[in-house]
Amino acid sequence: MSPFTGSARSTDQWHHLDVERDDGVVTVTLNRPHRLNALTFEAYADLRDLLAELARERSARALVLGGRGRSFCSGGDVEEIIGATLGADTARLLDFNRMTGQVVRAIREAPFPVVAALHGAAAGAGAVLALAADFRVADPSTRFSFLFTRVGLSGGDMGAAYLLPRVVGLGHATRLLMLGDPVPADEAERIGLISRLTPHGEADAAAGALARRLADGPALAHAQTKALLTAELDLPLAAAVELDAATQALLMHSADYAEFHAAFTGKRPPVWRGR
Amino acid sequence: MSPFTGSARSTDQWHHLDVERDDGVVTVTLNRPHRLNALTFEAYADLRDLLAELARERSARALVLGGRGRSFCSGGDVEEIIGATLGADTARLLDFNRMTGQVVRAIREAPFPVVAALHGAAAGAGAVLALAADFRVADPSTRFSFLFTRVGLSGGDMGAAYLLPRVVGLGHATRLLMLGDPVPADEAERIGLISRLTPHGEADAAAGALARRLADGPALAHAQTKALLTAELDLPLAAAVELDAATQALLMHSADYAEFHAAFTGKRPPVWRGR
Amino acid sequence: MSPFTGSARSTDQWHHLDVERDDGVVTVTLNRPHRLNALTFEAYADLRDLLAELARERSARALVLGGRGRSFCSGGDVEEIIGATLGADTARLLDFNRMTGQVVRAIREAPFPVVAALHGAAAGAGAVLALAADFRVADPSTRFSFLFTRVGLSGGDMGAAYLLPRVVGLGHATRLLMLGDPVPADEAERIGLISRLTPHGEADAAAGALARRLADGPALAHAQTKALLTAELDLPLAAAVELDAATQALLMHSADYAEFHAAFTGKRPPVWRGR
Repeated sequence: MSPFTGSARSTDQWHHLDVERDDGVVTVTLNRPHRLNALTFEAYADLRDLLAELARERSARALVLGGRGRSFCSGGDVEEIIGATLGADTARLLDFNRMTGQVVRAIREAPFPVVAALHGAAAGAGAVLALAADFRVADPSTRFSFLFTRVGLSGGDMGAAYLLPRVVGLGHATRLLMLGDPVPADEAERIGLISRLTPHGEADAAAGALARRLADGPALAHAQTKALLTAELDLPLAAAVELDAATQALLMHSADYAEFHAAFTGKRPPVWRGR
Repeated sequence: MSPFTGSARSTDQWHHLDVERDDGVVTVTLNRPHRLNALTFEAYADLRDLLAELARERSARALVLGGRGRSFCSGGDVEEIIGATLGADTARLLDFNRMTGQVVRAIREAPFPVVAALHGAAAGAGAVLALAADFRVADPSTRFSFLFTRVGLSGGDMGAAYLLPRVVGLGHATRLLMLGDPVPADEAERIGLISRLTPHGEADAAAGALARRLADGPALAHAQTKALLTAELDLPLAAAVELDAATQALLMHSADYAEFHAAFTGKRPPVWRGR
Repeated sequence: MSPFTGSARSTDQWHHLDVERDDGVVTVTLNRPHRLNALTFEAYADLRDLLAELARERSARALVLGGRGRSFCSGGDVEEIIGATLGADTARLLDFNRMTGQVVRAIREAPFPVVAALHGAAAGAGAVLALAADFRVADPSTRFSFLFTRVGLSGGDMGAAYLLPRVVGLGHATRLLMLGDPVPADEAERIGLISRLTPHGEADAAAGALARRLADGPALAHAQTKALLTAELDLPLAAAVELDAATQALLMHSADYAEFHAAFTGKRPPVWRGR
């Protein structure tokens, strides 16, 4: 347990997500396969709260986000979310939309890499969850659809209008967010939306293996790489270079940096400690 | 007419552009085919003023920008612009260059999507007008040339050094803007500079069909998607997510969002009102 | 010599780099082929100081950065840098990492284009030097490796977490910086990391020819294009458009702009002066 633990307790059981922990790798699985893992208010809240707890506890070194059944995630549930928001007042609507954005921020700001394991539909909010991850490991059945305009909403949902142009460029991002057309796996790979395309049915295993590699490697270096990629999208060059210098100076005091040199000199593989 | 109409009148006739209106779709055609639609001072001014009027009147839901004859647009006219600027004083030069930049800002900030219909040359200022559009629908004859350095000017003209790296990445953008070499349609598509490549001679029709689809769809959702894409290029992630939340909360009060739910529940296609 | 010369002297001889000058083209060659041109403290310092002097003297119109032997550059020397930093205190570590960042800033802010001539390994700091260049001219043997995490450090080194997402997009950049896997030339070209792929063994010649073309062309226009590309990554659209307007108004008073018009009117090729 982190020494920086105060009065706040950790959650014993997550009711709206499957959460497994295995030596630094946390696997989160959306598990409403009869609804193609459509998100409910409670599932969003669990994602928000789980990521906050993991960031605080400091035990996770990598996280896999996947979905049970035929699809990764079909987005916000039409009945349980769209239906419910139709009767909601302004404050409630803002509260809901801020929550979904908090999930995306929590993914981007998590102090560990997040690997999305994708197959079938990654639609609406499901597409944005995948987009917010650091890696998108996908099999050929994967189909992204940023279908927000199809329900009368803005394509800029949960940070998509910020993230997507920075991943695939403004031209593709405009087309995808404005029209909401499906993007098959081969196009997604071509435009840089997929990190790794696997054979059919192998995305979960490949995402798990990647998370294992990340967790067993120099995990502090991975975490700082992610933190700098996230921060430097919003920094000018001069500040980015200064942040890099301070970070490398810091990591040059780390155990893993010394271990690399000892292993290299001793002609043996390094034993990473992630600190 | 918009209720927010004051003393300023709308222009009865545009002398330096062809402007057609058809139920929410405005088609603007550059029409100096004997000069490959080279831009004059007056054509820039008409583009600036037309876009300002359309933004104010609120009747346009999509705009197509195309060119008559063999090419979309060969850029600023060598005689009428380069020749004239050689004798101009500093204040006049700044005034002219600010006007061309205002056209690009007006395209990016227009409260409706802009579809460029491209064929033949999209050169100099013509390439930047296309770049500023939300969609670039192009046939295989299209050839982009950011040829500003070829006339001794900066490749960063009318926002090109801002926009092009955000569309195709800094590496390609540097090459295109610094060298001014022609970019054929297949390369343009490969690097993400073309939204949709059509068969030969079909760009105008395809651009018109896309504009019609946008205008007849959830047009307020489209307009907000564009506004957020434009704004969030310049925002940090936290602010982008907050803007998204406020925008979605707003649109969840819109007629089109309710209509989507009613249509979905009633198992019928939605009838969009764009509000 | 520039009239803006004060008391500071220029360096007579660079001991840790080969530097050749030929009519506006400066060719800098890393020359420790027995170590695959691994960088030492002194080589970094020479790069920093050389670029500062060239920026001040105003004689360079283009620069080629290449490497002798089997590879462009294998990065920081494991013994002379990693070994030495292990014993260094905090102030010294920050000083070193700021110096490497200054080299990258000096490349991005140099008032002339920089062409990297690549073959074999472009690894670690070598990959970032290439990334900071305006053009990456590479032969098929080129292999990028952003291998910082492999030594326990952050992938965000010397501005890489700022630059790489702006060149290849956030998805590819995350994969490359977090994992440190080698990127062969064909993949690098596909994702936009290579400006021009040459036949085997021809990168140096092609880079030299490109630098010659840049130096003999409208060099002031090239320099301003670079300055605007660099600046506008960090500017909002409105400021970028204003910077473009001021820059073009300035260059419309330049000798090269008048020369273009005279040459065009006289139906002869322009004779560029770079001013």
